Amino acid sequence: MKLQRLVCLGFSGSELEDSYWGEIDALVESREIVSELRSPDIATEDGLLVKLGAKVGKDSIDAMPKLKYIGMLGTGYGGIDTAYAASKGITVTNIADYATEAVSEFTFGILLEYYRDIAKARSQAKSGNYSDDFSGGEIKGKKFGVVGLGDIGKRTAQLAQAFGADVCYWSRNRKQDVEATGIKYVDLDELIKTCDIITINLAYNSETEDIVNAERINSFKKHSIVINPSPMELFDFGALLTRLQKDDMVLMLDHSDEMTEEQLKTLQPLKHVIVYPAIGYITSEASALKKRIYVDNLKNFLAGQPTNKVN
Amino acid sequence: MKLQRLVCLGFSGSELEDSYWGEIDALVESREIVSELRSPDIATEDGLLVKLGAKVGKDSIDAMPKLKYIGMLGTGYGGIDTAYAASKGITVTNIADYATEAVSEFTFGILLEYYRDIAKARSQAKSGNYSDDFSGGEIKGKKFGVVGLGDIGKRTAQLAQAFGADVCYWSRNRKQDVEATGIKYVDLDELIKTCDIITINLAYNSETEDIVNAERINSFKKHSIVINPSPMELFDFGALLTRLQKDDMVLMLDHSDEMTEEQLKTLQPLKHVIVYPAIGYITSEASALKKRIYVDNLKNFLAGQPTNKVN
Repeated sequence: MKLQRLVCLGFSGSELEDSYWGEIDALVESREIVSELRSPDIATEDGLLVKLGAKVGKDSIDAMPKLKYIGMLGTGYGGIDTAYAASKGITVTNIADYATEAVSEFTFGILLEYYRDIAKARSQAKSGNYSDDFSGGEIKGKKFGVVGLGDIGKRTAQLAQAFGADVCYWSRNRKQDVEATGIKYVDLDELIKTCDIITINLAYNSETEDIVNAERINSFKKHSIVINPSPMELFDFGALLTRLQKDDMVLMLDHSDEMTEEQLKTLQPLKHVIVYPAIGYITSEASALKKRIYVDNLKNFLAGQPTNKVN
Repeated sequence: MKLQRLVCLGFSGSELEDSYWGEIDALVESREIVSELRSPDIATEDGLLVKLGAKVGKDSIDAMPKLKYIGMLGTGYGGIDTAYAASKGITVTNIADYATEAVSEFTFGILLEYYRDIAKARSQAKSGNYSDDFSGGEIKGKKFGVVGLGDIGKRTAQLAQAFGADVCYWSRNRKQDVEATGIKYVDLDELIKTCDIITINLAYNSETEDIVNAERINSFKKHSIVINPSPMELFDFGALLTRLQKDDMVLMLDHSDEMTEEQLKTLQPLKHVIVYPAIGYITSEASALKKRIYVDNLKNFLAGQPTNKVN
């Protein structure tokens, strides 16, 4: 089976190498790029490829009565009304687990950068100043909490344990295999109150929106370090800002597409907030795997054996 | 037993907190600071405290006929003629193992900084540019070689294994306990030829001087990453420079006291050389432990139970 008309929302073309586009073109009669899902331009499309952060609500779905397939080039699909898509018989796929190592390694990279002031040390030495007037902390011995024990959370917990941290986790479901390795389950409120280092590894959906609410934000330990490689919608942003303005905890995050310019401009001047571009998932290994899975998802759907279906 | 006259070479006083100096003063009749070991000023000293990089040769030892004790505030004691000191009945102590975690964690900090371009990402985002135009590599899956399997080498190997690297080591002595965990022993030449990432964790002494000789330097793999938290005397510096000028491998090192201004000025402009201040061993945890051991070494020597004696 082939798709008749595949529309790519917000693609520049450079998201995939030509060889992958070639594979996709062999699976479709025609393909086009649009910057918005505007009816009636899209009325005859039966396939839709989207990028992280794309919004595909009821209106867009209604505007594509022939739609059968939505392929997300990424893991998070919070902007897609997957339930409504399911009710119309539309398969939504995403790409999970391709960046488990990339994100977990990045978490320790930015944590160690913070503890040892590595960026400053590097630039200071480059300018010829080799002063060793640095202090630093160790991961070993710290109380390390992982919120959300999907693939990335689990790998992060394992690495923290290898570094000699005292690791605990909270997740919607208990994971006996992980607990068997000495990683303790604790209640979310307890984790937030007691940990020195916390990573948030949750997908964004209606259940997790604002899960880190005002009360929890106010109970982060003094001088704790919170690392959020997940969407900012997990936090009550106003309460977070108020807490961060006290300068008594550290927040490290990457700039997810969902963050507004205004949010960023409010966060950046704060002394203990470190924002990274959204690069945690970017490694050559992860990138190759991601593109492979993306094309395979479409191939498998058309072969009647859909993979990574999320609805 | 107390020391009569303790001389501190090159100390500013700020190396130890007052509480530690208080403990030391309780163990000696008098204490003074000198910037050089110049006879006859030091003829009556029976104790000597030195800092990393200090040179204490035959002449200095001969100038202190009453000397009984030399305490090194650090691990490396390459500048002290320990054999000659032993022949005169002088005990030399150092401080080993206090910074095992600090140095090992720093190694992964600077490795991940390099792989993910973390310093650049941080400063770019700080200036409001959130472009994700980054590439990156993962530690997982890389061939990782550890040269020298003392405490730091062993810990570094364990962490590399936890990250999912394929880890091997070379050391003067085989370590069965480490091999039992899947870390393979290989010949030094083989390790250098085959590894993607190599850390050098050797003490500097007459046996290890120039151990990374011209032939070995030329056989580092293309695009390999070499991390040297050890003294530069382990390398044939001229051959290293020639190889680095080809821009086909990466060298990360910290600026050990033994490096000359000229060496640094030659290294710094090279594209794939990253020099850090000598801060790998600096964390609050390591610093507290180091000072404790330093005072205890003197205390234990005077009690007739010397600890950390190196000669």
